[in-house]
Amino acid sequence: MKKFNTQPPSGTRDFLPKDVKSRERVFGVIRRVFEEFGFLPIDTPAFERIENLLGKYGEEGDKLIYKILKRGEQAASGETDLALRYDLTVPFARFFARYQNQLPRPFRRYQIGPVWRADRPGKGRFREFYQCDIDTVGTSSLLADAEVILALARSLSRLTLSGYVIKINSRKVLAGLLEIYGIPENLRRGALTAIDKLDKVGVAGVVKELKGRGLPEAALIKIRENLSRNGSELRNEIKDSRIGKEGLEEVDEVIAMVAPLLTEGEIEFSPFLARGLDYYTGPIFEIYLKGAAGAVASGGRYDNLISMFTGKQIPACGGSLGIDRILSSLRLNDQSGEDALMPQVFVTVWDRASMSEALRIATELRDEGVVVEIFLGEGKIGKQVRLASERNALYCLFYGPDEQRKKEVTLKNLSTGKQTSVKRGQIAETLKTLLQRR
Amino acid sequence: MKKFNTQPPSGTRDFLPKDVKSRERVFGVIRRVFEEFGFLPIDTPAFERIENLLGKYGEEGDKLIYKILKRGEQAASGETDLALRYDLTVPFARFFARYQNQLPRPFRRYQIGPVWRADRPGKGRFREFYQCDIDTVGTSSLLADAEVILALARSLSRLTLSGYVIKINSRKVLAGLLEIYGIPENLRRGALTAIDKLDKVGVAGVVKELKGRGLPEAALIKIRENLSRNGSELRNEIKDSRIGKEGLEEVDEVIAMVAPLLTEGEIEFSPFLARGLDYYTGPIFEIYLKGAAGAVASGGRYDNLISMFTGKQIPACGGSLGIDRILSSLRLNDQSGEDALMPQVFVTVWDRASMSEALRIATELRDEGVVVEIFLGEGKIGKQVRLASERNALYCLFYGPDEQRKKEVTLKNLSTGKQTSVKRGQIAETLKTLLQRR
Repeated sequence: MKKFNTQPPSGTRDFLPKDVKSRERVFGVIRRVFEEFGFLPIDTPAFERIENLLGKYGEEGDKLIYKILKRGEQAASGETDLALRYDLTVPFARFFARYQNQLPRPFRRYQIGPVWRADRPGKGRFREFYQCDIDTVGTSSLLADAEVILALARSLSRLTLSGYVIKINSRKVLAGLLEIYGIPENLRRGALTAIDKLDKVGVAGVVKELKGRGLPEAALIKIRENLSRNGSELRNEIKDSRIGKEGLEEVDEVIAMVAPLLTEGEIEFSPFLARGLDYYTGPIFEIYLKGAAGAVASGGRYDNLISMFTGKQIPACGGSLGIDRILSSLRLNDQSGEDALMPQVFVTVWDRASMSEALRIATELRDEGVVVEIFLGEGKIGKQVRLASERNALYCLFYGPDEQRKKEVTLKNLSTGKQTSVKRGQIAETLKTLLQRR
Repeated sequence: MKKFNTQPPSGTRDFLPKDVKSRERVFGVIRRVFEEFGFLPIDTPAFERIENLLGKYGEEGDKLIYKILKRGEQAASGETDLALRYDLTVPFARFFARYQNQLPRPFRRYQIGPVWRADRPGKGRFREFYQCDIDTVGTSSLLADAEVILALARSLSRLTLSGYVIKINSRKVLAGLLEIYGIPENLRRGALTAIDKLDKVGVAGVVKELKGRGLPEAALIKIRENLSRNGSELRNEIKDSRIGKEGLEEVDEVIAMVAPLLTEGEIEFSPFLARGLDYYTGPIFEIYLKGAAGAVASGGRYDNLISMFTGKQIPACGGSLGIDRILSSLRLNDQSGEDALMPQVFVTVWDRASMSEALRIATELRDEGVVVEIFLGEGKIGKQVRLASERNALYCLFYGPDEQRKKEVTLKNLSTGKQTSVKRGQIAETLKTLLQRR
């Protein structure tokens, strides 16, 4: 017999019941917070027309898009017409363009779902992973930027991840700095890409890459010196550029709104925070957990992306929670997944003749919302009780010849071993009392 | 500027907030019922190795599978190595084979998620659609079959879809009938395919197709006569075949367990129910809503599928709810999607200077779990109130110069128009009382 490979495809994961439960709990908390801020849920297909995705994520991004072969007679051509979504932002831009007349303006939406990138799989990096996005479209008010940050921060707090630092900058601050350094227009985009790696490669690494990109020596000296200084030390220099000053005012305004409302984390100006994606235009931010590598949330303002689908400029800002990093930070002290899976009652089956009645008892309990597992098939009672224990059931229910004669059942508490006889008509009531007492 | 097509790809759908909310509500009800029966949630990737899917769904099925191009340097070859899942059953068989030593046995799992089929799109037929599956692996007890049917029926009842009919048969009954009709072994599979169309093409249509498939004339006469008879009329004939008799006993046993526990629907033996998929081996069933076309749920026993991945035979049975048909039956009287989207309070912003304080008030209310939308940007109060009404907010909150001086806010009930002055420190408390009274 042909043997099939049972591993999930490279970079993807199967989720066991306890994993699904932990993830659902986290998604539930996040969803609730997003809704408290007035963000509304939407959903879009797993794949999009390929031309809608290509060219949106930079050259590297395009290579990582999963492309789908045409179907039917066109399959033989090897041509592709669809692609799995690479993020939730571009599909949302399409969505907004299509339904804008039916949507409130400004429109706040959230979306939680998988995206696919054919990245090299690695520790904590998957080819199928979930994004939790919020975005506000149709306003250039910085209050919208502040609300996005507050909603993401609140999600972390609700998940008891309280030790976080929000780093904030504006693309305009970076534009101002590049102007001040005298970097020619054509080298600015490359310079940003290099600066974006500061966390990974350090000051020397960034300067080396900038040198390779042909930046003037004077600029390199200035940048090397600036990269080691903090936000407040650079404020006066940034103000020398008109665009830099504008960016700094944006950052200050967002900080002024957000900082007093953070009960648990902190927010700081980070003048070299760059964010990889091309489409940002204003404030940008990343949120880090203390003691953990990599941002758990990030986002920014992108006032030009929506226009690619609508044909006219519509301001927007948003952010995203990195659910896999969040889950791995929670993993250590999270038992909630396991707990949610226990049957409350395990109904044993004495013999084939009593199967129907056992099923009736199970049905009556389920009518009352009790989580009931019934033993399937035939087997000795001892084996059935062992299975009930393996499944971490709270109570075992017996309905043998004795019980049948007396028109009652026996309930056994599997942690204390205590047994209780209960009249056939009072099982649900008794159980509900017992379960509430726990 | 290049204009992008903003429609979702053919056969797929975008979901507006009210649609997402209705669907989530329905998924929540179904999930809860499945868990009450002890089914545990699992998840698997959207795509599988292509060789794991091909050859499982018949020739027609293979053509409808979405195939994914290889990445990187191999993309140019036009070759495919992955494919989007076509159902949740085959991925589950792979999953079970991989994790069987970590799973309880019998293992009851449920899975709710999208699957993809490049079918011709049509009314109620999509290329991306959700399946809600339950399966029990590792027991040949018919109690497992009964529980699958009861769990699906209970889901329909909980969703207030009470007028349903469960049609049940066994593949063994069909095998018995084909034997009795004297249909040669090599024509039996084709004969089943034809009989499966009874609902769509009627008796004459089935007989015509059977004739085309070369069935003997004597068999055709017998089948034509039998197809118009009901289950109880055929019982004695079916018993003439050993395998038919075995199937009938299976059906009777499941009916005996299920029928007394159905408070709302009914279950009936349907000897020509065939189910399309090849892999069924025992009892099979479909559930219909009265007055609606097409089954809303279906399933059966498949004792040989898992062995394709494990190498040894493991009995299994399961079923699936057709969520799109269920949703369209619920659509007419379902307002829950809309209702779940209303902000409870819409916080107006008097001027730029009071923006921070308005945000603080919103934050305090969210701390208490109130759903709050804040006006973004600058605008006249009249415009803000209109937006609040459009968003169906319950209350509007004002914090103008008068209120600021008196250290209070004004709450306006947007349906009655009634205004209440509330001390700055008592907003959350007051609102919670007002919201509870509704």
